[in-house]
Amino acid sequence: VNAARPTSRVFTILDVAGTVLFAAEGARAGILAHLDLFGVLVVALSTALVGGVIRDLLLGDTPPAAFRSPLRIVAALLGGGLTFAAFAVVGPGFGPIVDDIDAAALALFAVSGAEKAWEFKANGWTVVFLGTITAVGGGVVRDVLLNRIPFVLTQSVYATAALAGALVYYLCRRFGLANGWALALGFVVAFALRLLALLLGLSLPVVQLPAS
Amino acid sequence: VNAARPTSRVFTILDVAGTVLFAAEGARAGILAHLDLFGVLVVALSTALVGGVIRDLLLGDTPPAAFRSPLRIVAALLGGGLTFAAFAVVGPGFGPIVDDIDAAALALFAVSGAEKAWEFKANGWTVVFLGTITAVGGGVVRDVLLNRIPFVLTQSVYATAALAGALVYYLCRRFGLANGWALALGFVVAFALRLLALLLGLSLPVVQLPAS
Amino acid sequence: VNAARPTSRVFTILDVAGTVLFAAEGARAGILAHLDLFGVLVVALSTALVGGVIRDLLLGDTPPAAFRSPLRIVAALLGGGLTFAAFAVVGPGFGPIVDDIDAAALALFAVSGAEKAWEFKANGWTVVFLGTITAVGGGVVRDVLLNRIPFVLTQSVYATAALAGALVYYLCRRFGLANGWALALGFVVAFALRLLALLLGLSLPVVQLPAS
Repeated sequence: VNAARPTSRVFTILDVAGTVLFAAEGARAGILAHLDLFGVLVVALSTALVGGVIRDLLLGDTPPAAFRSPLRIVAALLGGGLTFAAFAVVGPGFGPIVDDIDAAALALFAVSGAEKAWEFKANGWTVVFLGTITAVGGGVVRDVLLNRIPFVLTQSVYATAALAGALVYYLCRRFGLANGWALALGFVVAFALRLLALLLGLSLPVVQLPAS
Repeated sequence: VNAARPTSRVFTILDVAGTVLFAAEGARAGILAHLDLFGVLVVALSTALVGGVIRDLLLGDTPPAAFRSPLRIVAALLGGGLTFAAFAVVGPGFGPIVDDIDAAALALFAVSGAEKAWEFKANGWTVVFLGTITAVGGGVVRDVLLNRIPFVLTQSVYATAALAGALVYYLCRRFGLANGWALALGFVVAFALRLLALLLGLSLPVVQLPAS
Repeated sequence: VNAARPTSRVFTILDVAGTVLFAAEGARAGILAHLDLFGVLVVALSTALVGGVIRDLLLGDTPPAAFRSPLRIVAALLGGGLTFAAFAVVGPGFGPIVDDIDAAALALFAVSGAEKAWEFKANGWTVVFLGTITAVGGGVVRDVLLNRIPFVLTQSVYATAALAGALVYYLCRRFGLANGWALALGFVVAFALRLLALLLGLSLPVVQLPAS
């Protein structure tokens, strides 16, 4: 097992915040799919942890950070459990705000994934793609578990927003900005793009096939 | 490629036994989905091998044990092939016993996954979660391949049983019991819990959503 | 991060060619599933890159080759983008040829996966299975993303063709043939078997279950 490289305190804070938020989103998806409390928590854990686990596997940092301390597991259980309670008490009217929560989690994971790849001295392509995969990986697994076509295929400005955030992070570091600024700018770009897409309902061209 | 660390003989026996049993379970699922012999064997191999492959990837032990020797591949092909033959000869009346086989495989993989993580000097969280993931990983992939919602989301006492078995294994080792006792106790706890859940049809609360 | 071991120039050429072809196949699948341009490109990238990423993870070669240079990402975007354009201009009449393209990609990845495992000094089982998984991995993820039962389960001579090609590659190297010959023979066997299966519509026995 590799010695884990040190990661910054701000990385850990962002990563755990993203974990809580994605767990909330995963929990909502599980509740709407009529799963019981346990199933909801499994979806919440998967949505929240898988992106980071894939990131760590791709960087060869094993066992993944998600399992090296209780931090992320407890954060995901809290995020999922609180969302279950909120739905049970407040009802589904509480739901729409979760789209914004999801956008924030997406942006957090895009920059935390990019930062970790940067700290591992990966090149630019790896930094940008690892940020993107960290951000969308959990959601893909959530949708696959719930047996539906993943968000990432049908929402044009979802992976793109994450990619833009990771790219901004990378360019900032490349041109010498401090880590904190790079994280902040990358986050803002990814978050704003995703919110904009939600507001405007952006879409791209589709090939018109003749009716079969 | 890392040098594989030595694993105990009893680990190998349990791991291969779990492989045969999960292959039988996977084969049944493939047969009931009307796949041909080849598709049935692919599902059997996936169900039987993926849990251990994920375990080894998460521990950084590559290439995974499943590919380092013919042992597990042959065991999975045997388990899957014999189940196909049994269904062809005896018919689906043979099926229900496979639930018990699945429970035994779940318990075997929970403790063998936990043991391997322990031997790699992983901490307690990693030991318990790796045991659980080893046990449920193959079944998740089986259900995803067959395009249905994974068992692990709808059967409350499935991952929980594996987690309990891995936890018991960890606590036994932590408090100084020999490996053999830890394996036996962990297995019994996971197996008994899962059988109990099958008998009683346990379930957890669901959020009641208004009809949409 | 591990130092990447050198891979031969011919490996890179085959691997990138397979990437372009699989991207075309993935793009067609996305178009037929009525995804927009972005969704089509995500499916194309997944189909083209995931097989090689899994291969590299299983060999412990991280970060995977797909992310270490722009080569494969650009190749996949080109293959996917050109296919989207071709469908938009020529229409779906262009589609059937993609089955042959897919067969060629399958054969290319089977031998490039086997070659890489061989270069990493893996044993015969690992070489043959890694070749097979490299070849079928992308297609499985494509079908899982599109929420349908993977090809690999229902097309008997799909994984088998890849396995045969990887086995031929391994046997050639084992008996001292040059890498180029082993690649050529392995490719021809896998490609021919797959085309033959497409032509003949081969199938294997199914267990007849009583109507339920």
